[in-house]
Parts: sequence; C-alpha cells; structure tokens
Amino acid sequence: PKKQMPRSRTRFDNRGMSLEEEINESNQFYRARDLAVVYKKPIPLQIVKVDYPKRSAAVIKEAYFRQPSTTDYNGVYRGYYLDFEAKETKNIASFPLKNFHDHQIEHMRRCLRQAGICFVIMRFVSLDRLFIYPASPLIVYWDQQASGGRKSIPLSQIETGGFEVHYALKPRIPYLGAVDQLIASLTIQKGDHHGQ
Amino acid sequence: PKKQMPRSRTRFDNRGMSLEEEINESNQFYRARDLAVVYKKPIPLQIVKVDYPKRSAAVIKEAYFRQPSTTDYNGVYRGYYLDFEAKETKNIASFPLKNFHDHQIEHMRRCLRQAGICFVIMRFVSLDRLFIYPASPLIVYWDQQASGGRKSIPLSQIETGGFEVHYALKPRIPYLGAVDQLIASLTIQKGDHHGQ
Ligand SMILES: [Mg+2]
Ligand SMILES: [Mg+2]
Repeated sequence: PKKQMPRSRTRFDNRGMSLEEEINESNQFYRARDLAVVYKKPIPLQIVKVDYPKRSAAVIKEAYFRQPSTTDYNGVYRGYYLDFEAKETKNIASFPLKNFHDHQIEHMRRCLRQAGICFVIMRFVSLDRLFIYPASPLIVYWDQQASGGRKSIPLSQIETGGFEVHYALKPRIPYLGAVDQLIASLTIQKGDHHGQ
Repeated sequence: PKKQMPRSRTRFDNRGMSLEEEINESNQFYRARDLAVVYKKPIPLQIVKVDYPKRSAAVIKEAYFRQPSTTDYNGVYRGYYLDFEAKETKNIASFPLKNFHDHQIEHMRRCLRQAGICFVIMRFVSLDRLFIYPASPLIVYWDQQASGGRKSIPLSQIETGGFEVHYALKPRIPYLGAVDQLIASLTIQKGDHHGQ
C-alpha cells in the first residue's frame, strides 16, 4: 500500500474547516463584535439563462464561473481599507509565486497606490503556520521573476517581512492583531497616510 | 390608447445606460486613471448543481439569487474606504425610504463605526438630478420612521445635506468630486479619522 505522509500536528480545535471557511468565520466574529467589516467577495458568474417560474423564485439554469479580477476579501477596519488574498502551500521552506495571478497582483498595486492595506494570509499547511505577508514585498518578488529572480518567497523572509498569526478559538484566525502590526510598520515608514 | 407620460429632458450623451452601468463605467474610468479602486460587488448566488463536462468549463445548472447582505459598491480612494448604494426614484419632491432594506442600513451603520465613507448615489429620474447623500443623515431618517417620522427624505434636505453630481462625459458620473466634499465635511466635524 501507498506510504502515507505523516500528518501534521492536529491544529487546536481544528474541525476540518478550509482556510477560507476559517477566515469567513473570523470575519463574522469581527463583525459581530464591531471590530471590522470584512467580507469574502462572491465569485463572479456569467449568467446565461434564467427561468422565472410563476409564484416561485427565479432559477438560474445556465451560468459559468468567471475569473475574479480582484482579490478574495475586502472591507474596513479603523478607517483603513483592507484588501487581501488567502493562499495555502504544502511547501515547507518557501511560498511559491505561482499561487498568484497577474490580475491579483495588478489589483494589489492599484490598491496600494490608493493607500489601501493589502496583504496575503499565507498558510503553510504542513507546518501549520499562518502569516500576514504585505503586498509590497510580494510585488517586489513578483517583479523580480521577470529578471531571473526566484519563483518563491523563502519562509525566512516571510518570518521577517510578515506577521505571524496564531490559531485561536475566538476568532479562529485572529488576523487583526497582525494587521495592527502591519499598519504600525507602514506608519513608521511613511507617516499617517491620511495626514497629507 | 394609453396616454404616454412626457419624457424627461434627454440627458447629455445619454445612450440609455442604467444608473448601475453608468457607475460601473465611471469606476472603470477611475481605475484606469489610478484615481480610485471601486467595484460593484457581484450578486451572491446559491449554487445548487454544477456539471463538470470533460474538456470544457464547469456549467452551473441550478442556482438561486440571494439577498445581498451589504451594499452595491465598495473600494478604496485616497486611503479611505468607500461603501455605497445606488438608488433611483421617479418621485420629484422626496426620496422614499422604502428603497432601502434593513440589512443595507445595518451594513452602513457598521461601516460608519469603522470610519468608512458611506453614502448613497441617489438619482431623481424625472428631474435628471444626481446626489451623493451621506449615510449618517439617511440613518437618522430611517430610525425616525419607527417613531412616526416621515417615510421619505425631502429633496430640499438632500440638496442641503447631500452633494450634487453633474453628469459629464469622462467619467459619466464624476462622483469623486462629491466624495471629496463629503470627506471634507466629515474632517471639519470630527477631525482626521486616522489621527487618533
Ligand atoms: Mg484565495
Ligand atoms: Mg442599488
């Protein structure tokens, strides 16, 4: 029989949710506590055929998934616009850039130019570690690929340039703490972005 | 034969676009010029049945429209989180509150508590006038309904409490100018919301 890979340490209160479900649940928690208003963007669909039966709800009979032109999540936190992707890797030493798409990177560039707070929630599945990694250094890595740069971001760089998030109970992914750190680091670098 | 209502004055360069299409086009213009990153949120759907034909794209065969839990548009502009609804009325003297839903008002309350810039783009179809009306006074009117308040916002109040937007060519609905005025009015009232 096929040899099974050793399973990673069972996560605290892991009830088999996907990263996306865990983030959705965390967002719900944050909304209920009035701490942030962040939603997953619905997947855009191209609707081709809709039936309108009498006395009941319209039924979509033919539709196709469209490539999202932006990132997974956005919302507002303490007056800041948050915009982020959630991505996972099974790698243990680096995060592959092929997880990102051109249009996502372009969207992040645009949001950064508008002084949005943009990042990726990166999960290293096998290490069971989570990070918030800012869009700015990600974009540097992305652009360097074209001039022979590496195709992944080393974990060591994510540890120093990112902000680790530790799984908890309420919410499961308490990422706003890491967002506070990210905002503080930007404020030190550039001053308050509303203070022009 | 049925008597036809006199048509309202033809709008400048009106090519029969809906308000939503005009706003989408304006957002595209703003993105292309790097002035703001604002998108219409896709309509949330409940997907029931998907076919995965070999060698071609997945086809959604059964899905239903879900009531959106938030507003129509959001995005980032000069470091500010923007969140807004687009609504029209054929009335000429007031804007009916029945155009809004409870969950939209609740979403606006939450966004305001996070210091987001929330408003409605209101169009008076018959008058061919457009306004940005801030969420705060809208919510006051909304809440007063329960204690016998009026069911609509008088145009005179929208003229004084809102910011008129004049149709143009590029973009068709240049609403960021009115957003600047709204932000300026909030800054005078409360000070810079990032300056805590
Ligand atoms: Mg994702
Ligand atoms: Mg609407």
